[in-house]
Amino acid sequence: MTNGSPENIAVIERQGAFLDRDAWPAERWCRLETAFELIGTRSALVLLREVFYGSTRFDDLVRRAGLSEAVAAGRLKDLVACGVLSRRPYQEPGARTRFEYVLTDVGAQLFPVVVALMEWGELLRDDHQTGVELVHRDCGAVLHAEVHCAEGHEVALGAAAVRLKKG
Amino acid sequence: MTNGSPENIAVIERQGAFLDRDAWPAERWCRLETAFELIGTRSALVLLREVFYGSTRFDDLVRRAGLSEAVAAGRLKDLVACGVLSRRPYQEPGARTRFEYVLTDVGAQLFPVVVALMEWGELLRDDHQTGVELVHRDCGAVLHAEVHCAEGHEVALGAAAVRLKKG
Repeated sequence: MTNGSPENIAVIERQGAFLDRDAWPAERWCRLETAFELIGTRSALVLLREVFYGSTRFDDLVRRAGLSEAVAAGRLKDLVACGVLSRRPYQEPGARTRFEYVLTDVGAQLFPVVVALMEWGELLRDDHQTGVELVHRDCGAVLHAEVHCAEGHEVALGAAAVRLKKG
Repeated sequence: MTNGSPENIAVIERQGAFLDRDAWPAERWCRLETAFELIGTRSALVLLREVFYGSTRFDDLVRRAGLSEAVAAGRLKDLVACGVLSRRPYQEPGARTRFEYVLTDVGAQLFPVVVALMEWGELLRDDHQTGVELVHRDCGAVLHAEVHCAEGHEVALGAAAVRLKKG
């Protein structure tokens, strides 16, 4: 039993100074909130989905994300400003220079987030026969997100702990 | 080169019928959106964070999530209604019956999402000396989210593909 939660439901064990949860307000240091501020809107998420699926051009992104041009333009600007996407000029013959949107290195590191969210969303569906699935190109097996530690162990929720960093 | 994206930026390769992205509107079958509808608000995310850190009682959740009672109450109701949390009665001596909130099995399966988001949020910070870190209880090594396929291979973004399910 940890943290007063029931024995049959695992939680992340609080350790050290973080045992006293109330001594540590989440403001300023919560990385979940930092992440959420950047990508925690439906419009950001559906645009990122299309970028991950290989769309780069504004017209494609707008149509495939199902957003209005105004909303998409504003959100793409935000995603560029925060370093998730970069904007790159291109020019087709006889046309003016336009811009396309590509993942930065930081943006590409959202890949496990995308996989984990899609995997979890699948749990919530009644119909598992339709929709898309992410697979490994080489072997065709379905992808899923796993938690590992830096020592290489696979870690279940019940084997996880949270502690304050040694500052 | 895949999907018209630049050679140096990996994306998820579209395969089969999904190569024609425009033939498949995302409405109805996008699992990312399904997930986002349930947990894609700041209030849901900070409440889930505290539940994952072992808080169960309304007063603790409100204070630690930094929300107003009204917002927290509404969001907890939503999270119970969609099956992420369950509500369980408890009673302290001399007090009326109250309810605490615990993860359901579906809620507990958000663990890789939480780890992946925290890991990504860490990338965005200037100050890596403060805040909390998730670690493996057994060996103390830091946690991270990895993408694997059902055959056990670790899969990088450049080795991932997306296809329509065979309905």
